[in-house]
Amino acid sequence: MTGTIYGIGLGPGDQELMSVKTDRLLRNAKHVAFFRKAGRKGQARQIVEGMIPEGAVEFPMEYPVTTEIPLTDPRYNEILSAFYKEVTDHLIALAQSGEDVVVLCEGDPFFYGSFMHIYTRVKDVVPVEVVPAITGMSGAWTATGAPITWGDDVLTVIMGTHSEEKLVEHIQLTDALVIMKIGTNFDKVVRALKAGGKYDDAYLVQFATMPKQTVCKLSAMTEKVTPYFSIIIVHGQGRRP
Amino acid sequence: MTGTIYGIGLGPGDQELMSVKTDRLLRNAKHVAFFRKAGRKGQARQIVEGMIPEGAVEFPMEYPVTTEIPLTDPRYNEILSAFYKEVTDHLIALAQSGEDVVVLCEGDPFFYGSFMHIYTRVKDVVPVEVVPAITGMSGAWTATGAPITWGDDVLTVIMGTHSEEKLVEHIQLTDALVIMKIGTNFDKVVRALKAGGKYDDAYLVQFATMPKQTVCKLSAMTEKVTPYFSIIIVHGQGRRP
Repeated sequence: MTGTIYGIGLGPGDQELMSVKTDRLLRNAKHVAFFRKAGRKGQARQIVEGMIPEGAVEFPMEYPVTTEIPLTDPRYNEILSAFYKEVTDHLIALAQSGEDVVVLCEGDPFFYGSFMHIYTRVKDVVPVEVVPAITGMSGAWTATGAPITWGDDVLTVIMGTHSEEKLVEHIQLTDALVIMKIGTNFDKVVRALKAGGKYDDAYLVQFATMPKQTVCKLSAMTEKVTPYFSIIIVHGQGRRP
Repeated sequence: MTGTIYGIGLGPGDQELMSVKTDRLLRNAKHVAFFRKAGRKGQARQIVEGMIPEGAVEFPMEYPVTTEIPLTDPRYNEILSAFYKEVTDHLIALAQSGEDVVVLCEGDPFFYGSFMHIYTRVKDVVPVEVVPAITGMSGAWTATGAPITWGDDVLTVIMGTHSEEKLVEHIQLTDALVIMKIGTNFDKVVRALKAGGKYDDAYLVQFATMPKQTVCKLSAMTEKVTPYFSIIIVHGQGRRP
């Protein structure tokens, strides 16, 4: 009997916001794999603290490189590809020996998730199942206390990594807006929001649904933003009775 | 002691994909409210079949009008406003008498949800809490067996109700795409996808995560689409090692 590789979405961070299915798979897991930066505990692993059964085998998959080499350097792809092959070989071997493995995925696995790099490499070899989850952005817009979209609002989700020109074009065209990957792109994103006419309506949510959660108008930000768990939200203002 | 109104997201339809929190609130509920079309069981109510405790009081909130009057008719807003006032008065009275009430919300309450019409009317009067959930679109892209977004892909969510011109503009500009409210707009949406160069890559998902789920290339569709639970998905093709 071949085992199954489960890519389980953990949601935005609050353990109570995990799905019943993810909760069940996690609490019965024998093998738990997760990505992390070398030397760190790992964000996904921290979210499930206290939920993994005693005796389960943990398999931390440590990125050989994160921001040390620019994305445009061909070595970046080479190193990452070799790393993904190595870890997926291990997961496949486990499944082929009859073991089920859960792979922890922050947010929703198929929405900008790291699990997709495993998924595409294992899906034609062993059984694999993806468990969707609440996205980080959903945790963020819920935290603002106002609906992200009404009626027929258009919603655009964009990363702060794009050029200022491209950001402005999308910001102008959409009704509701979510911006992620802000970190070092913060100043550019602020300029683009101003040029696109949405700066005054933008909220910054940090650590959504987690104990450290903060929500404030972007224009009221005085401190430096947290690179990893920051999301900018602009609410749509569509039709409502 | 004033009670709390909980807007609980039910997710895309599979009971196992509800959050642990929604599951808990539902199985301990004393008052359960939900919208439905007059004479129907109600989609949200059907999703929770078997989960509501015996003895809980159900409060179906029946829309006085759905598609009988066009949205542009001023009477539409008047009738809906009066209806929302009537049902929220009842929910507020329950909370003020010390009872907690759960309001069932398909998908994620703050993402094109019907709960927001209650939320805005009660939030300054009695305690209210929104429980986010897995969106229907997340259930749909997971069903396609491929990630919706990679790397820095832009994602646009748009309703089929918009003009063909506006649809084409957004379809051309985005990487990944989700189209909802397809129903009677089907032919227009197909024309817009063709004009925007994404028709051949589009998938149609019906009844995502539910027993009746179907996934097929839009170009292979031969039958009429189900108006209510249909979502069109075009996957981004961004950077990947």
